[in-house]
Amino acid sequence: MQNIQVVIPFKLDGAKSRLAPLLSLEERVGLAQAMLKDVTLTVSSAGPVIILSRSGHNHCLMPHARVIECDLDLSDALNSLIDNWQKKGWPAHLLIVMADLPLITERDVEGMIHTEGDVVIAPGRGGGTNLLLIRNPFFRVSYHELSFLKHLDLAEKRGLLVSVYYSYRCGCDMDEVSDLPEVLLHGHGLAKEWLEEMGFILSAGKGRAGFLRKKER
Amino acid sequence: MQNIQVVIPFKLDGAKSRLAPLLSLEERVGLAQAMLKDVTLTVSSAGPVIILSRSGHNHCLMPHARVIECDLDLSDALNSLIDNWQKKGWPAHLLIVMADLPLITERDVEGMIHTEGDVVIAPGRGGGTNLLLIRNPFFRVSYHELSFLKHLDLAEKRGLLVSVYYSYRCGCDMDEVSDLPEVLLHGHGLAKEWLEEMGFILSAGKGRAGFLRKKER
Repeated sequence: MQNIQVVIPFKLDGAKSRLAPLLSLEERVGLAQAMLKDVTLTVSSAGPVIILSRSGHNHCLMPHARVIECDLDLSDALNSLIDNWQKKGWPAHLLIVMADLPLITERDVEGMIHTEGDVVIAPGRGGGTNLLLIRNPFFRVSYHELSFLKHLDLAEKRGLLVSVYYSYRCGCDMDEVSDLPEVLLHGHGLAKEWLEEMGFILSAGKGRAGFLRKKER
Repeated sequence: MQNIQVVIPFKLDGAKSRLAPLLSLEERVGLAQAMLKDVTLTVSSAGPVIILSRSGHNHCLMPHARVIECDLDLSDALNSLIDNWQKKGWPAHLLIVMADLPLITERDVEGMIHTEGDVVIAPGRGGGTNLLLIRNPFFRVSYHELSFLKHLDLAEKRGLLVSVYYSYRCGCDMDEVSDLPEVLLHGHGLAKEWLEEMGFILSAGKGRAGFLRKKER
């Protein structure tokens, strides 16, 4: 197996606030943890996994990963890890995977790894970066607004070869209520089980075809 | 080349009403026609193309396709075509492609065709069916609410083998204003040109990363 280091950034404070129209804070935390477990389990076949977490979370149920706590913002925390590896030994492939991708499979991870490029980006809807594979230690990340375009631009400015890995499942990050039907439609793991256990079912709507609602008891 | 018949359903009445928060009726018609041209050009490499249109539209700019007019609703119009082919000679592969998929490429069409199954579905977000490849003449379509699940169910009830073809680009149908950034981010054809010519640009938002707005002149 190639030398692949996986990093999954995770924070619970203000967890998934855009899901608030459907889910309580407690529910959002429950779903976020279920998604993190799904993602961790899926990517752990690729190589060692670090969960880059804000301090104070309880990650005792994560046997497949090492937890590193850091209270910097997302890009700074990741760039600090990258700086460190650049100095102390580059892992050859650094794969950064968002924690809210409950649909991804091992096939997606393999698809990323088999895509050429100093940098490989799997975009999320709306211009986000959902998975990012970095092979060149001089690349730095910028996860703020329209990060897909920023990462393309940053790679090009450094003369790096950048590829885009298009994937339906990698594209489905769970940011908004309208994203959640994808978990019941195309999911396979703990996040799907969690939504079902909480009583959520798919309903047909007039707009975007499906939405979630709680079953009447 | 295999014997592939492509059908693209299209209607202009009430064109893309859910894009009304951003686009005028005239603009929605312009975008719908640009997307139809993109899709027609992309799929025309696979085989002969029929545009299944409501009556009274002007399709004189569609050299790559034959137009059949029909005022039945979507599923009835398609099932009537399928009935007809079943009786008069099945085309081996019938590929139904929605007209609002400006991101699809020839590679996606090849991906569908190389996927096994009596029925192959490329899902759209929210439980829709964006591309549908039918190899068995006894299958019938049902494009209403949550059609992805309905098509899975209909295939299974007839004992047919059904496969799902997951694709980021095939999944991006342009139903809502929040879908449109995908065209500028990942598009390549006339719909992208049209949006740019109309002065639309990407802006970074706080919610879903990017949204479209008109450039100030």
